[in-house]
Amino acid sequence: MSRRTITGFSNPTVKFVRSLRDKKHRKREQRFLAEGLRLLTDARAGGRLPEILLMAQGREAHPLLSDLESAVSAAGGDVIELPVDILAKVTGKDNPQAVAGVFAEWDTGLAQIDRQSAPLWLVAQAMRDPGNLGTMLRTADAVGAGGLILIDDCVDPFSVEAVRASMGAIFTQRLAQARWDEFLPWLRTGAGQLVAASLRDAVPYRGAPYAGPCFVMVGNESRGLPEDYELACDLRVTMPMKGRADSLNAAVAGAVLAYEVLASLES
Amino acid sequence: MSRRTITGFSNPTVKFVRSLRDKKHRKREQRFLAEGLRLLTDARAGGRLPEILLMAQGREAHPLLSDLESAVSAAGGDVIELPVDILAKVTGKDNPQAVAGVFAEWDTGLAQIDRQSAPLWLVAQAMRDPGNLGTMLRTADAVGAGGLILIDDCVDPFSVEAVRASMGAIFTQRLAQARWDEFLPWLRTGAGQLVAASLRDAVPYRGAPYAGPCFVMVGNESRGLPEDYELACDLRVTMPMKGRADSLNAAVAGAVLAYEVLASLES
Repeated sequence: MSRRTITGFSNPTVKFVRSLRDKKHRKREQRFLAEGLRLLTDARAGGRLPEILLMAQGREAHPLLSDLESAVSAAGGDVIELPVDILAKVTGKDNPQAVAGVFAEWDTGLAQIDRQSAPLWLVAQAMRDPGNLGTMLRTADAVGAGGLILIDDCVDPFSVEAVRASMGAIFTQRLAQARWDEFLPWLRTGAGQLVAASLRDAVPYRGAPYAGPCFVMVGNESRGLPEDYELACDLRVTMPMKGRADSLNAAVAGAVLAYEVLASLES
Repeated sequence: MSRRTITGFSNPTVKFVRSLRDKKHRKREQRFLAEGLRLLTDARAGGRLPEILLMAQGREAHPLLSDLESAVSAAGGDVIELPVDILAKVTGKDNPQAVAGVFAEWDTGLAQIDRQSAPLWLVAQAMRDPGNLGTMLRTADAVGAGGLILIDDCVDPFSVEAVRASMGAIFTQRLAQARWDEFLPWLRTGAGQLVAASLRDAVPYRGAPYAGPCFVMVGNESRGLPEDYELACDLRVTMPMKGRADSLNAAVAGAVLAYEVLASLES
């Protein structure tokens, strides 16, 4: 088991890892960064090992971390020890987790989605906030969804913030990215009920006739879904809005709807 | 109607407003910043006018903004026009809204909460993320809750990020801040069912015996609720967790639970 120590901010590996905080570099390198033993353990359970494992000096020993280090070494990965202040600089957090890993991105084509493998899928259209996107992945995990399909121009799901907010679900959920004009024809090649919250000709979200595989779609944080996307849905539902506002946070709306679908499909 | 124009970054009012992005300055000045015509209109509807109204040069005219300007002037407030790049600097956003306002903070003692005025209240304990806190306020508005009670060491609800995420609900929802050992005795002076998601001796969240006024409590993003807080609840409920993770984003959990309580109380 080989392990090397880095002590300088100007080390090329440190610079490389740090550069992955920028989308431009992530896209070029097809690599991304995830922090924390919990996430890295979820990644391993999901069949993904980091190519580079970064461990802070002075960290507490942990059997899961020892296992992970062995696995990364055995797979020919790079295991690095470094001072905690350099790790903080790399991950951009003042109080960094004691471990971080660099992972290869994977194919996020629609072919990744086996619609019959789960009763429920989440769909986000033009979602711009990485926290919301990560939260959708986390919710997808919780409701037993198969994964998350990103439509049109969404924020990068491999951004540090999205990965962090996913709490590991980025590694365990299926993830696809597609344009609407790819997604809709793909959806119509098989069974699949497309559902969205809407005010157009909609039925109450409680007790609506949900059917699996059910695709729960939420729209952009500011603009919501385009009208033609709503009209293409098989089911439009309304959720109570009792206050002054006419909408919920997008990740919240998706979650409330997804839990309702889950309860309906299981009853 | 008086209006003055500011053209320099070093103007004392610009510096003052900008300083309100720091909690320390907000606390000292008891003032905070809100952006956007929508939020400022909600504020006015909630009975709150900005003491300082900032308007970008070159903005589009809007009757609501004209009304607002008149109202601020009439109330003796300060109406300022300034270049959009200075407004961007003040609010810390690259694409700032065309208007922003400085508001006086208000009393957030528990005396603000008239529990009988709404069937449902949200409670957040040690919530650290301003986006989550703002989202809770927005959800509270949507479910027709009376407001949000912040327990223990929460992030500042008057932070720019929390105000932004609340989408105006900061102005229309009741807001209280209290220590747990103030809140619990206060709660017990009257009717009020304290509910939390929990794994301890809990019943399924669907069909649980909710009763208004119902106080839906969520815990800290990392640690959840302390055990004794959970044990003090009148009702502990479980939500399905079908994946690898054992929890949801705190604002999401609060929203799913709140919508369930709403449906239960209305049925």
